[in-house]
Amino acid sequence: MTQMLEAMRGNITEAMKAVAADEQLDPEYIRKMVAKGYIAIPDNNQRETVAVGIGENLRTKVNATIGTSTDINDLDMELEKAKVAEEAGADTLMELSIGGDLDNIRRTVLANTKKPVGSVPIYQTAVEAIEKEGSAIYMEPDDMLKNIEKQAKDGIDFMAIHCSVNRETLKRLKREGRKGGLVSRGGSFISSWMVHHDVENPLYENYDQVLDIVEEYDVCLSMANAMRAGALTDSTDRAQIQELIVLGELVDRARERGVQTIVEGPGHIPINEIETNINIQKKMCKNAPFYMLGPIVTDIAPAYDHIVSAIGAAQCARYGANFICYVTPAEHLALPGVEDVREGVIATRIGAHAGDLAIDMERFGQEDIKMADARKQLNWEEQYAHALFPEDARAIRDKRPPEADDTCTMCGNYCAIKIVNQWLDKADKEAFDN
Amino acid sequence: MTQMLEAMRGNITEAMKAVAADEQLDPEYIRKMVAKGYIAIPDNNQRETVAVGIGENLRTKVNATIGTSTDINDLDMELEKAKVAEEAGADTLMELSIGGDLDNIRRTVLANTKKPVGSVPIYQTAVEAIEKEGSAIYMEPDDMLKNIEKQAKDGIDFMAIHCSVNRETLKRLKREGRKGGLVSRGGSFISSWMVHHDVENPLYENYDQVLDIVEEYDVCLSMANAMRAGALTDSTDRAQIQELIVLGELVDRARERGVQTIVEGPGHIPINEIETNINIQKKMCKNAPFYMLGPIVTDIAPAYDHIVSAIGAAQCARYGANFICYVTPAEHLALPGVEDVREGVIATRIGAHAGDLAIDMERFGQEDIKMADARKQLNWEEQYAHALFPEDARAIRDKRPPEADDTCTMCGNYCAIKIVNQWLDKADKEAFDN
Repeated sequence: MTQMLEAMRGNITEAMKAVAADEQLDPEYIRKMVAKGYIAIPDNNQRETVAVGIGENLRTKVNATIGTSTDINDLDMELEKAKVAEEAGADTLMELSIGGDLDNIRRTVLANTKKPVGSVPIYQTAVEAIEKEGSAIYMEPDDMLKNIEKQAKDGIDFMAIHCSVNRETLKRLKREGRKGGLVSRGGSFISSWMVHHDVENPLYENYDQVLDIVEEYDVCLSMANAMRAGALTDSTDRAQIQELIVLGELVDRARERGVQTIVEGPGHIPINEIETNINIQKKMCKNAPFYMLGPIVTDIAPAYDHIVSAIGAAQCARYGANFICYVTPAEHLALPGVEDVREGVIATRIGAHAGDLAIDMERFGQEDIKMADARKQLNWEEQYAHALFPEDARAIRDKRPPEADDTCTMCGNYCAIKIVNQWLDKADKEAFDN
Repeated sequence: MTQMLEAMRGNITEAMKAVAADEQLDPEYIRKMVAKGYIAIPDNNQRETVAVGIGENLRTKVNATIGTSTDINDLDMELEKAKVAEEAGADTLMELSIGGDLDNIRRTVLANTKKPVGSVPIYQTAVEAIEKEGSAIYMEPDDMLKNIEKQAKDGIDFMAIHCSVNRETLKRLKREGRKGGLVSRGGSFISSWMVHHDVENPLYENYDQVLDIVEEYDVCLSMANAMRAGALTDSTDRAQIQELIVLGELVDRARERGVQTIVEGPGHIPINEIETNINIQKKMCKNAPFYMLGPIVTDIAPAYDHIVSAIGAAQCARYGANFICYVTPAEHLALPGVEDVREGVIATRIGAHAGDLAIDMERFGQEDIKMADARKQLNWEEQYAHALFPEDARAIRDKRPPEADDTCTMCGNYCAIKIVNQWLDKADKEAFDN
């Protein structure tokens, strides 16, 4: 039985208890939210994983994507990326390889992590068609389902499946006349296939068969957002919202089957449209957890898209997105390396946390409050203890050590806190009151 | 005559014309805004500088702060920082040295840049008192004014002067009972002095004398915000708002004299309070340009405070802040090095630009639109041409070159754009419409 079916029947599973403990919330609250589909716990029944809750009222979670490409296919590096991503604090991984022995890569990654792992099964189908016949337009609909099943059996916890690319969404895309067009890799495979064969998307037509598979293995559906904009000028357009309507209908049908869903969101989008996007997605999809890809809030900062995305991530978390896919400095330029992965996770975690603080300082800001105390006391070890990335902080201060141990080299003994502690805080109250 | 007096008399100066050209706005609009005090052009009449407009409806500007400390006093490094900051796109510099021969450092920096340069004159007075007598509480009020005049004569374009730390603001600070207390360096000097001597702030009492000096040299007053919070838990409190009321009154008095002002804002603040802060500051100070320090939107990411601040900067620019002081990765840990300065400017520029895009894509997003076209065409040279930091982008792609020249190693020939250009865009319109 899926987590969601258990929850619907009133059962609090071990995964729900673990999420409740992690979030310091009541297990019964988690159960209720899982039953409604407002919280998802991606946790394939074929594999042991850490329970990670994604959804309403929970800490915003961060995904790190790894995977080979056709140009760079190095399984050891991908395993190293997975490790570094976890160490930097990623909550989940997505394994999106398109180069090399895809089954072996997936199984090796799954065997080497306890984090929930996501995938995009259509990649494998497209890669096989390209390798065999030269193009994704030669994909067989049966193979699409077979790869979903194989990957589910391997233990993949959540899958981005492009069910919502149908004739309606493609019609709206064509009418829209975008600058950036369609930039989703899976979306490009399935839509090219549809247009070439002039038929409906089999993943849309055979959605019940998709549900049969993911229900059996309790895979959480990550409703893929193929129409996300690939340029700021295309953001929040009719093609995207058309797809969102279809996505909402598919979420309903998944919930009827007790299948957990999360819904992917854009993409390239200016910061002033983020709140609207989250509100409309939550409405169309009846509060399904929102999985934000990026977002990219300016197009002109390649090499620094992790910072671009951290800016967007903060807005997302603040306005109710629940899960954020990181972006690395290599975005739009190259396959990320190990250090890129680390920087991407760090930036996205900072953004997610800044947004969570804006929602509830009391719940999410306890470490920030302790940092304030440590700074006031000029207690550096305590400052490191409450830092998200303590070793990086220590390294900067240690590289340029101050003469006076309680200060840093920015101000030395002219440290404002030191002066205030010495003169202002010790002054009589009367000194301030006349 | 100051820029503002010229504007009040209907004269369009060369500086106003230059700002208008830079911003693609009507010179008469710039003149009107300078006359009202809604736009400032910091431009000391003792020195030639590039005209930089700060204020309503202009691109959000970025300041990079440099300067020695007592621990690290290396003029060559400070000059290198100034150069690197300019190359990365900083609009202005602040020279905030507290170690070494302060006059020589200031004059050398001023001689080596055409950018507007700011300072905090009280630092010099405090440093001299500390060196001579052991503490800032031995500062002489006359010396405070003398250093303002000396630095104005040297050609400093804008000065942060702590006139608003008065008995009222200190009373509110004491009653507030903050966690982080007062963290402004200048604020700590002047408030300790006031409490020790149990008298009013001479810079507040003798504000007219301050105005005499800055009017003579046409120095723009950067109304220092000593009560900015130094921890998220202290943000937007009564001490800060009390000071803001006083700042507003001081802005009125400066405008009566034709002295340009900008007003500094917090500090450590969660993202959900940024809009309110800007709105209340613009109201209290009658639309004086808003100079945001930071802001720091979470306290627990030392080593990455440039990213923290980029998140805040985007919010600031979006809601009407006009000028943003960068934060480097060394913030809260050490005096920044050259590379820290570069990273700080980059992050803040990205944040400021993301915020500007949210205000007006048409005006501020032309490069973003061209980038969208270049990406759709898979034209990499054009992508670099429209990137904020082209060499960094090129370096990432070149480090891991793709087999196919028109792609990158992320997707290789499975590039979504390439597939869409080949299959989807070329398909008959009919394929989408049934």
